Amino acid sequence: MDTSLPQPITDNELSLLDRYWRAANYLSVGQIYLMDNPLLREPLLPQHIKPRLLGHWGTTPGLNFIYAHLNRIIRQRDLNLLYICGPGHGGPGMVANTWLEGTYSEIYPDISGDAQGMRKLFKQFSFPGGIPSHAAPETPGSINEGGELGYSLVHAFGAVFDNPELIVPCIIGDGEAETGPLASSWHGTKFLNAARDGAVLPILHLNGYKIANPTLLGRSSDEDLQQLFTGYGYEPLFVEGDDPHQMHRDMAAAFDKAFDRIRQLQQEARGNEAAAPVPRWPMIILRSPKGWTGPKSVDGKKVEGFWRAHQVPVSSCREDENHRQILESWLRSYRPDDLFDTEGKLKPELQALAPEGDKRMGATPYANGGRLRQELNVPDIRQFAVEVASPGGSQDQSTAVLASYLSEIFRSNPDNFRLFGPDETASNRLGRVFDVTNRTWMEKIEAYDEQLSPDGRVMEILSEHQCQGWLEGYLLTGRHGLFTCYEAFIHIVDSMFNQHAKWLKVSRKLPWRKPISSLNYLLSSHVWRQDHNGYSHQDPGFIDHVANKKADIVRIYLPPDANTLLWVGDHCLRTWDRINVIIAGKQPEPQWLTMEQAVEHCEKGMGIWPWAGNEQPGSSPDVVMACAGDVPTLETMAAVDLLRQWLPELKVRVVNVVDLLALQTREQHPHGLEDGAFDEIFTADKPVVFAFHGYPALIHRLTYQRNNHRNFHVKGFNEEGTTTTPFDMTVLNELDRYHLAQEAIMRVPGLAEKASEVLDKLQEKLAEHHRWVREQGEDLPEVLNWVWPASAR
Amino acid sequence: MDTSLPQPITDNELSLLDRYWRAANYLSVGQIYLMDNPLLREPLLPQHIKPRLLGHWGTTPGLNFIYAHLNRIIRQRDLNLLYICGPGHGGPGMVANTWLEGTYSEIYPDISGDAQGMRKLFKQFSFPGGIPSHAAPETPGSINEGGELGYSLVHAFGAVFDNPELIVPCIIGDGEAETGPLASSWHGTKFLNAARDGAVLPILHLNGYKIANPTLLGRSSDEDLQQLFTGYGYEPLFVEGDDPHQMHRDMAAAFDKAFDRIRQLQQEARGNEAAAPVPRWPMIILRSPKGWTGPKSVDGKKVEGFWRAHQVPVSSCREDENHRQILESWLRSYRPDDLFDTEGKLKPELQALAPEGDKRMGATPYANGGRLRQELNVPDIRQFAVEVASPGGSQDQSTAVLASYLSEIFRSNPDNFRLFGPDETASNRLGRVFDVTNRTWMEKIEAYDEQLSPDGRVMEILSEHQCQGWLEGYLLTGRHGLFTCYEAFIHIVDSMFNQHAKWLKVSRKLPWRKPISSLNYLLSSHVWRQDHNGYSHQDPGFIDHVANKKADIVRIYLPPDANTLLWVGDHCLRTWDRINVIIAGKQPEPQWLTMEQAVEHCEKGMGIWPWAGNEQPGSSPDVVMACAGDVPTLETMAAVDLLRQWLPELKVRVVNVVDLLALQTREQHPHGLEDGAFDEIFTADKPVVFAFHGYPALIHRLTYQRNNHRNFHVKGFNEEGTTTTPFDMTVLNELDRYHLAQEAIMRVPGLAEKASEVLDKLQEKLAEHHRWVREQGEDLPEVLNWVWPASAR
Repeated sequence: MDTSLPQPITDNELSLLDRYWRAANYLSVGQIYLMDNPLLREPLLPQHIKPRLLGHWGTTPGLNFIYAHLNRIIRQRDLNLLYICGPGHGGPGMVANTWLEGTYSEIYPDISGDAQGMRKLFKQFSFPGGIPSHAAPETPGSINEGGELGYSLVHAFGAVFDNPELIVPCIIGDGEAETGPLASSWHGTKFLNAARDGAVLPILHLNGYKIANPTLLGRSSDEDLQQLFTGYGYEPLFVEGDDPHQMHRDMAAAFDKAFDRIRQLQQEARGNEAAAPVPRWPMIILRSPKGWTGPKSVDGKKVEGFWRAHQVPVSSCREDENHRQILESWLRSYRPDDLFDTEGKLKPELQALAPEGDKRMGATPYANGGRLRQELNVPDIRQFAVEVASPGGSQDQSTAVLASYLSEIFRSNPDNFRLFGPDETASNRLGRVFDVTNRTWMEKIEAYDEQLSPDGRVMEILSEHQCQGWLEGYLLTGRHGLFTCYEAFIHIVDSMFNQHAKWLKVSRKLPWRKPISSLNYLLSSHVWRQDHNGYSHQDPGFIDHVANKKADIVRIYLPPDANTLLWVGDHCLRTWDRINVIIAGKQPEPQWLTMEQAVEHCEKGMGIWPWAGNEQPGSSPDVVMACAGDVPTLETMAAVDLLRQWLPELKVRVVNVVDLLALQTREQHPHGLEDGAFDEIFTADKPVVFAFHGYPALIHRLTYQRNNHRNFHVKGFNEEGTTTTPFDMTVLNELDRYHLAQEAIMRVPGLAEKASEVLDKLQEKLAEHHRWVREQGEDLPEVLNWVWPASAR
Repeated sequence: MDTSLPQPITDNELSLLDRYWRAANYLSVGQIYLMDNPLLREPLLPQHIKPRLLGHWGTTPGLNFIYAHLNRIIRQRDLNLLYICGPGHGGPGMVANTWLEGTYSEIYPDISGDAQGMRKLFKQFSFPGGIPSHAAPETPGSINEGGELGYSLVHAFGAVFDNPELIVPCIIGDGEAETGPLASSWHGTKFLNAARDGAVLPILHLNGYKIANPTLLGRSSDEDLQQLFTGYGYEPLFVEGDDPHQMHRDMAAAFDKAFDRIRQLQQEARGNEAAAPVPRWPMIILRSPKGWTGPKSVDGKKVEGFWRAHQVPVSSCREDENHRQILESWLRSYRPDDLFDTEGKLKPELQALAPEGDKRMGATPYANGGRLRQELNVPDIRQFAVEVASPGGSQDQSTAVLASYLSEIFRSNPDNFRLFGPDETASNRLGRVFDVTNRTWMEKIEAYDEQLSPDGRVMEILSEHQCQGWLEGYLLTGRHGLFTCYEAFIHIVDSMFNQHAKWLKVSRKLPWRKPISSLNYLLSSHVWRQDHNGYSHQDPGFIDHVANKKADIVRIYLPPDANTLLWVGDHCLRTWDRINVIIAGKQPEPQWLTMEQAVEHCEKGMGIWPWAGNEQPGSSPDVVMACAGDVPTLETMAAVDLLRQWLPELKVRVVNVVDLLALQTREQHPHGLEDGAFDEIFTADKPVVFAFHGYPALIHRLTYQRNNHRNFHVKGFNEEGTTTTPFDMTVLNELDRYHLAQEAIMRVPGLAEKASEVLDKLQEKLAEHHRWVREQGEDLPEVLNWVWPASAR
């Protein structure tokens, strides 16, 4: 490896680099303001200006400044850099730079690299039918949308894990830096192994203001910032000022130092297999004025270096001649004729500053992960199948069974699969993966510590935000992964889920963006088995949130046992461009289906379990007992057992649903069952008692268009929870076997009077339960020991 | 003021304090394990031990240690302290200490302060029908549930704002410290004015491990921690070790120093009206072993000082005699006979260590905010009413009108109302409040800065988590407030909303917890007016999330104009123990109702707008055009205008819904309309075209039990959004006037054939829109200038 230090920047380089920066700034202003006369070859007239001025200038010159300097670094060192643009609405800068380097026109040939293309480039920005004002899926080179703030740095770390040749300069605005997720993201270095992972270079860009307020870090002293980031584990390098000449010199020197240091740390780690302590990685703190190089003031009010530069520094430029003159002077201050030739092309000496081919940050395949994605090597799920001699005849921990499968995934995919979770891998009974790998841990390891290693592939931090963000960054750069989480606390990332779903929806429509692996959630420790942790840990509403998203993006699975979980887990890991949510229990529970039955059942998404009911072939049942979720399935089966014992003449059908969104119509969801098939399962007119894992309203929302919806009676979580026993949780929410049996009797026309004795017996069972559980602190033996009497039938 | 320094702790004090700590530890272990034989007056037998061992020991001895030392500080200095227990599942410690000081038995007389009470105290913990394992609403002295982690410190700051006599020692576990919300909470001091606010003393409790992993900060060096927290702006004081004697001495000295420093900073600020810079507040970093004083090892495996101490350090104590002996030795190591008298009462010399009356941390009224709550002084909304000479005849910015009302609230409630928002107060058009107050800002203020002041009452930080958490802390200690936020990004606090709703549900059932003011959200910059910010800013799903919660807790309001917003805003601010969500636009929009009409309409929650339709008295309409939300109302009115012009024979009814949950049945929600009243509005059998602000599924979910539900055809947000114009947003989601008119025609039986020309005209309108908006970049003049032709009728 070449260890000679690169030379400091020369005056000539600096002058070219400044012109390149001016070109990017010019293009950024043009995007915000102009719809014609892109090169100002004629005086600026009202009709050249967009009717609605939308866009964000304030952060943009700084982003352009960084981009230009990174181009220099790439050419100098032949590096693979992925530019993550954290600041909200930094879109104009990203678009300008990718146009300058040629990638924009390659991807969007209609936006050519000349005056005509420039005119279209300007008009389309924040314009109907055009492009958004932040770095979005449409923006070449981007994996991080600058819409909702807080996730740039966690995405950066996710991107470099297992990508040793990648360095991610991550620009963090001082607004974004105030968010919680960003504040915890700084710890990412403590999970980054310099030997096998790439590097992140955080660039904290302090321009002092948000929309209408100063920023906290912008007002912090250099001394406090130095201490804060040293305390986080970094070596901060400061670049501060507003004089472009000096700033170019300082920035080039800071980058030289930072990239030298990264190379040094990587060389040290890669030449040495022994676990090194966490190195002190470099970071850059860049203080530059908000709206740098824009109007100093407008109408006597300060603009540059103040929050008024945040969006459109000078408004009403169509109507107000004075404002229009300010705009024109501003644009001309970049001297477009010094930058673009007569055809509007970037002058050759400036073109030469950009890297080439895939080294261009707009073209890097790391920002279009589907180009790098390798299919996951998956084992045959049959080798992990649980033997089910008779339905319900044996018990197993479903997630523990899945863990054996996941162990094999780790074995067969040593460098492109990771498991993420907030300190809950063992708690969720996935401990078997530790037979194959460890938890990632770069800090000191004590002699008595267990399952920690610098090359571990299970990533645990007590932050759902970090788990989600790391996984997103990992997937977006072409790898595979799974996030396991307590069900209630996955709501912490509701909004990150939203943004990822939006990213997928848009990128699926862009032919140049290749498919990436799906984002998979395994929610265990779910609402029904948080009896020990209590009400704060009981919330099944994440799937309601998920169901709001576009049908082609989301899937929700509720496997009732281990073999169905194996099928579902394997299926999800092999899909792309989706978000899959799997909910499965971690406690010992009855196993219902053999592997063959599980495959058939899961492929259909839902179906009748004929062995569980007692309807006669050819005639329809009196009642359909439907269930979705492992605990609802257990309670439904126990209810059916009671009904078949106590009311043998009642004809019961049992239906189990695995693929929840298949309840919707085909029009609403691609997995939706056709109406005929749906009616064959649920009948057109019989009562359906539906025991559901989540809030009952979700089943109504999914089925309200179905013929038999009026007869759907759903039991589910009703916000009645506390610290109690598992069975009492179901009783509190009336999802237990006794309430389900009562509901069935009440809903079959005319049955209640005939079966009044059975109703009384069920009521007595509930009373007995209440007495017992409050006294003994555990469930009734008859509940604990209940077994589906399959052998008896 | 007395400025003499308190004396260092004496040996005698230290010995008593250690006994008090042992008593709390004994009671904590007892809660986790025992259901009988509470004082170990007989040998420990299997039947004395609970059948299910649930609870968390690891963090508890440290919490008890801090509690005992804080008691000393309170007595020594006569302070009001509120103990915030951040660590998850620290319940046993909080319960033990409040029992020792007597508050537990005062609140729950059945749990008396003797052996019999102790037995019940032990049994109820994590037992069916008992109490949760974390500091929950049931726990005296608590305002922060240790279930979902991350919010202790932000709650602490919320509690002390405008409470100059309160100091909150806030214990932060090293697990919780890894979360994003906690990481950003450290900035709270930058909003804390020592002159008018109380103080927070953060106590970072590093016990080294989470459930199954080391912690990041636990493994950090003291040097890094020193730098990190100095960088955040604190002065850290370290207390480290495991020898109780030395630790008592060190902790007492650290507390003396910290509370001296707090007093000094407050005295300086309070004697000096000039804005002081942010002082460097003290904090304590306490390193002590996880499971301190518990079993060192069990079955040859390390327990104390390791993650195995997290929950139940020694299990199966009923079945395993060896384990039972470990438990018994452990319990006896605290020497219960040295702590409790023959009746099981805490010995008098130890009782004397606790503060008295409301100074006891379990009894402080600050932790039961309803005891301190003053009614808000509210002005008459009529003085802010917009004049509406004819419906739709004028335009106004609804949130700007509300801002005048809020200004008056600020004027009349100078010390117990605050407005919270993530840098969006001005953006949400609430700028008029700055006529009365400023943004809270303790850092340096530049000459050109605007609306910043150390005594400002508008709190802005770019963190929805901080806004939400500050407001929760502020409300829970008895004050009033409002959180304004972009609609899409309120999902960031979905999970915090959950936990607050759960807190309210439980505390409403506890007679000793007095009602607190409702948590009010004003969501502006909503989905339909994020055309300039694009798809990432477009999400109306928060109300779906809200609607899952218990009906008696939540309300959702969609006022269509300024006067209805005034009524709703005023109403929400006067309620208690609820969570109110208000969605209202910030852009100029038509004003429909006079103040008198608005009051009547809002009190009903929904109703027919007779002046807008053309049905004949006594006969029923052909179609009901319903709407909820300001933009859907505008588009519905424009659609009705078209229908009335082009199909005058069609009888149209217009219905507007303000109080969304009134759509549910009375059984489902206390505001739900009776079925008869509902049918009078929506008819029993006519088509209803419902233009809705949010996802259409929510309307179906709320109305599926209604007689006419089959005829509900809902248009709303369908995940079709981008950067475009306001009207194009509605077209993309088919919520615009043309699609609504088409829908009405298609849904009235037999009308489509008769009105085919009208359908064609509507289609042509849509085509014209598409052509125009893509070319001109703004909406069609006929759309921009449309006015409800009220005067013509």
